Amino acid sequence: MTSTTPGTTTVVDSIGLLVTGDPELGEGPLGTIRDAALVIEGGRVSAIERAGASADERIDAGGRCVIPGFVDSHTHLLFAGDRSEEFAARMAGGSYEAGGIRVTTDATRAATDEELLALGRARAAEALAAGITHQEIKSGYGLDVPSEERLCRLAGELTDDVTFLGAHLVPAEYQGRADDYVDLVCGEMLTACAPYSKWIDVFCEIGAFDVEQSRRVLEAGRDAGLGMRVHGNQLGHGPGARLAAEMGAASVDHCTYLDDGDIEVLAASDTVATFLPATDFSTREPYPDARRAIDAGVAVAIATNTNPGSSYTTSMPFCIALAVRDMGMTIDEALAAATSGGACALRRDDIGTLAPGAQADAVVLDAPSHAHLIYRPGVPLTRTVIRRGEVVLGSVPER
Amino acid sequence: MTSTTPGTTTVVDSIGLLVTGDPELGEGPLGTIRDAALVIEGGRVSAIERAGASADERIDAGGRCVIPGFVDSHTHLLFAGDRSEEFAARMAGGSYEAGGIRVTTDATRAATDEELLALGRARAAEALAAGITHQEIKSGYGLDVPSEERLCRLAGELTDDVTFLGAHLVPAEYQGRADDYVDLVCGEMLTACAPYSKWIDVFCEIGAFDVEQSRRVLEAGRDAGLGMRVHGNQLGHGPGARLAAEMGAASVDHCTYLDDGDIEVLAASDTVATFLPATDFSTREPYPDARRAIDAGVAVAIATNTNPGSSYTTSMPFCIALAVRDMGMTIDEALAAATSGGACALRRDDIGTLAPGAQADAVVLDAPSHAHLIYRPGVPLTRTVIRRGEVVLGSVPER
Repeated sequence: MTSTTPGTTTVVDSIGLLVTGDPELGEGPLGTIRDAALVIEGGRVSAIERAGASADERIDAGGRCVIPGFVDSHTHLLFAGDRSEEFAARMAGGSYEAGGIRVTTDATRAATDEELLALGRARAAEALAAGITHQEIKSGYGLDVPSEERLCRLAGELTDDVTFLGAHLVPAEYQGRADDYVDLVCGEMLTACAPYSKWIDVFCEIGAFDVEQSRRVLEAGRDAGLGMRVHGNQLGHGPGARLAAEMGAASVDHCTYLDDGDIEVLAASDTVATFLPATDFSTREPYPDARRAIDAGVAVAIATNTNPGSSYTTSMPFCIALAVRDMGMTIDEALAAATSGGACALRRDDIGTLAPGAQADAVVLDAPSHAHLIYRPGVPLTRTVIRRGEVVLGSVPER
Repeated sequence: MTSTTPGTTTVVDSIGLLVTGDPELGEGPLGTIRDAALVIEGGRVSAIERAGASADERIDAGGRCVIPGFVDSHTHLLFAGDRSEEFAARMAGGSYEAGGIRVTTDATRAATDEELLALGRARAAEALAAGITHQEIKSGYGLDVPSEERLCRLAGELTDDVTFLGAHLVPAEYQGRADDYVDLVCGEMLTACAPYSKWIDVFCEIGAFDVEQSRRVLEAGRDAGLGMRVHGNQLGHGPGARLAAEMGAASVDHCTYLDDGDIEVLAASDTVATFLPATDFSTREPYPDARRAIDAGVAVAIATNTNPGSSYTTSMPFCIALAVRDMGMTIDEALAAATSGGACALRRDDIGTLAPGAQADAVVLDAPSHAHLIYRPGVPLTRTVIRRGEVVLGSVPER
């Protein structure tokens, strides 16, 4: 990490194409500006100027494209173990079932704090290299009080967007007694986890929690002061999306199966529909029709859903490429969904764009435009990553 | 590059899972061996031993997976210009047409030798970082005698598998006079290019060359001592695959549209069906059913088709992931197709496996098994690349 001196200004200069993410600042839906300079002060964007701006420190973008850092609003970053054999079996014809979560729960419970944090930090570093400058992190591989509390506490060392997901799955110890487990989640477990968490989440799906159980979990979290998120509509048409909208949740995530009624309800709500394209890739579900949701006025986000069962990737560019190729998004819509869309799903207005005042989280791409993120699929294009105004990966500033 | 001293032995030690690529050397179709050491002498694999082998120089794989370097049997690496706007228009609903090749031809003709070589070297370095240790390179963005000769000559500075593809498209100067252009390709152009080339190739497709023109090109190349390759069956059912099999071509590439008759003819031939999954991704063609071809006994390969129009990627792992997710290949089949399959498509038996005697081209993955290439889509997993026994990327050997 290269610390910039407090009070000094840094400029990312000679930007061939600056994607501000704010349509009022430039051309098109992403507010793009050619031949620009991004001025940073105190960790925030202080101004956008013409190329050639002066500052104490200078990072030369060399005519390349600069985008806002990706905001990944859905990850399960803290886990131990590997499920590549389950993945290989699925690729050979098996189907995805939520029950595989238990394999990861066993491995995660068995790991030490240090082991889990080291794994989480390694994955966060990998995500950073993919251009992700902010991640939400969920618990949900503990599924008992001390293990869930531990995951929320450790997640708090990596992000300020921690989500308590005790209601990820009914653990083996509670088989046939799902309501008793929901009592635990809404009672003692919530009490233990809430101090470390900003959000509550529930997996509302056949094989996990039904709509009434899900509602109880969300209400309990809301009453404890947490914002609400929902996993829903992943493996089939289900009540998750409508429940999320009805409850005023910030986001319903997966949305692989949305019917016209779901879309209508979402469009009339403030709930963001968060698509997880790498999950549909890795579980061989059909890609959802994001075009239909966007055209109906639904706010959308794209996230990685980094986890060892259904989406073991930190590559937001891979997710974006699938969204454009297979979900009907335009390139600009997909980039917006992975930046300001993710921020909206986390109810944050300080990240996700490079408008003056925003946190200076930016990525210099080894490409002349953001279209290359999809045009060059699979090719790592991250050259420099700046977070809170500091270069955390790549080129060092000149003084 | 770290040169090993001639006559010394190097060992890649503590390999958790060695993929030899030769079923006779280990388990399963890829001949995998656990806890192995790969001994290298004079740029070739000299032995496979148990972990803990002694040698003059030692590379510690740390329990990771080691695979043969990818053999990319189909690239158009030498070109100038960018077609991201055409790509973006296609993603917004347009269709792919072969005519876009002319845009690249104009830019390539205008570039200097030094510019083209610098671009080619940068792309080769990017490919190396993706684990590709050998690439075939085609001409085909010159389309006049001096330009095609130049491309073949420059390609020869980057690879020993140069393919003369004067018959890539009928250039603007010959519109309506395709047969005259074929005369040029088979005459003066071939004479100029053959000294620099090992292969001849033709784009047998509606909008490019018909079956009789394609046959003339292949026959002329064969008579000049070149091996034969065909671009076929990309944009619809066409005669390319059958022509390739009938003529004894080494490979027919694309194979997006194969009917039962094509598969039968290919299965009875020595012609390799080379799939280019990133091209189907980037042109939104349907993914071909590789499973059907493999089950019928067709020899298959996977290649990147690196080019600015229809597949601007060097990521073989991306291609493999698509082949498994969407073309019905198993993980092992896809890895074989991208290593020994590519070698077979180039009629080489010195690369594509890590059997004793093979050229020591190997990749240490940041993963415990090769399944992670698909299980972790979009994540760069290359840790160390060894080519002809030398570390060309990543970890330095200990002495």
